Amino acid sequence: MDTFAARGYNNASLAEIAERVGLTQAGVLHYFRSKALLLTSVLELRDQSDIQQLGPDRPQGLAFLRHLVDTAIRNAEREGIVRLYAVLSAESVTDDHPAQDYFRDRYDGLRGFVADALREACGLPDDGSEKVGHAANAVIAVMDGLQVQWLLAPGAVDMAASTDLVVNALLRTLAPDRFGADG
Amino acid sequence: MDTFAARGYNNASLAEIAERVGLTQAGVLHYFRSKALLLTSVLELRDQSDIQQLGPDRPQGLAFLRHLVDTAIRNAEREGIVRLYAVLSAESVTDDHPAQDYFRDRYDGLRGFVADALREACGLPDDGSEKVGHAANAVIAVMDGLQVQWLLAPGAVDMAASTDLVVNALLRTLAPDRFGADG
Repeated sequence: MDTFAARGYNNASLAEIAERVGLTQAGVLHYFRSKALLLTSVLELRDQSDIQQLGPDRPQGLAFLRHLVDTAIRNAEREGIVRLYAVLSAESVTDDHPAQDYFRDRYDGLRGFVADALREACGLPDDGSEKVGHAANAVIAVMDGLQVQWLLAPGAVDMAASTDLVVNALLRTLAPDRFGADG
Repeated sequence: MDTFAARGYNNASLAEIAERVGLTQAGVLHYFRSKALLLTSVLELRDQSDIQQLGPDRPQGLAFLRHLVDTAIRNAEREGIVRLYAVLSAESVTDDHPAQDYFRDRYDGLRGFVADALREACGLPDDGSEKVGHAANAVIAVMDGLQVQWLLAPGAVDMAASTDLVVNALLRTLAPDRFGADG
């Protein structure tokens, strides 16, 4: 995880990873077969620790949106994981990247979760309105974009405050009667 | 530009770049001295074409915010440039990346521009209120984050619609009397 976060996937060296865990490169490849499979395994391991938050038992509606803000608070204490995701998610759009499907699927799932949560929080039907989808994509995007800014200038960026501001502003836009015009 | 966008900086090969422009590697290095300086030159060249939009004569207030939405519309027609920035900005947080200062400075400048534009659009004084800063960081973040999602799944993401939604929602939050609670 640390090596992929510090160097990205393409620039990570199996020799460095092997040395950090006290194995030979052949030893690492005995367990993971290839650098690409090692990357996939690292991402899957990370996901297991978040599975309660994003699995079928995840909080619903407003509680899920508050959970996203809590995640931004927690992320400010775990720079390594933030860097891992920021670097790899963007690097995944390069040609033939082994984590491209992983991130495409991850975003597909997240977009659906956030759209569901917005609809439930706002009491809106799932009527195919595009506005909720645009808002859901924006919530995920703001969290991702803040991470890169924060990694480069931690003192200039409050990830939780900006996320909270956007979530509340979008809730007021989607359901002004429920979330009021001020506050 | 195409090679850095397709592979990222770390994984880009000078041999490939030289071949694409019909030079030897020594020929490329005659002009740019190193791969790092070539990258910096590519980014500076890109900036020159946007200089009117982000220089001292840039549009002010609401017009600047509308310009950001227009940029998102235009970006949907120029996948290569979007990929270049998405990949390199995130890769810049890896250890010893040659574009780290470039992106740190770029975001510093952008945060100031967007905060100024929000204050002017909302008729707010520059009184050190943190809310405008949080909103400015969020506007930049949402544009960046949408790019990665869009590159992975263009049909699922409307960058301009999501950006417009967030900008309007934040304007209503910062100045509800001026921008109204509905619309």
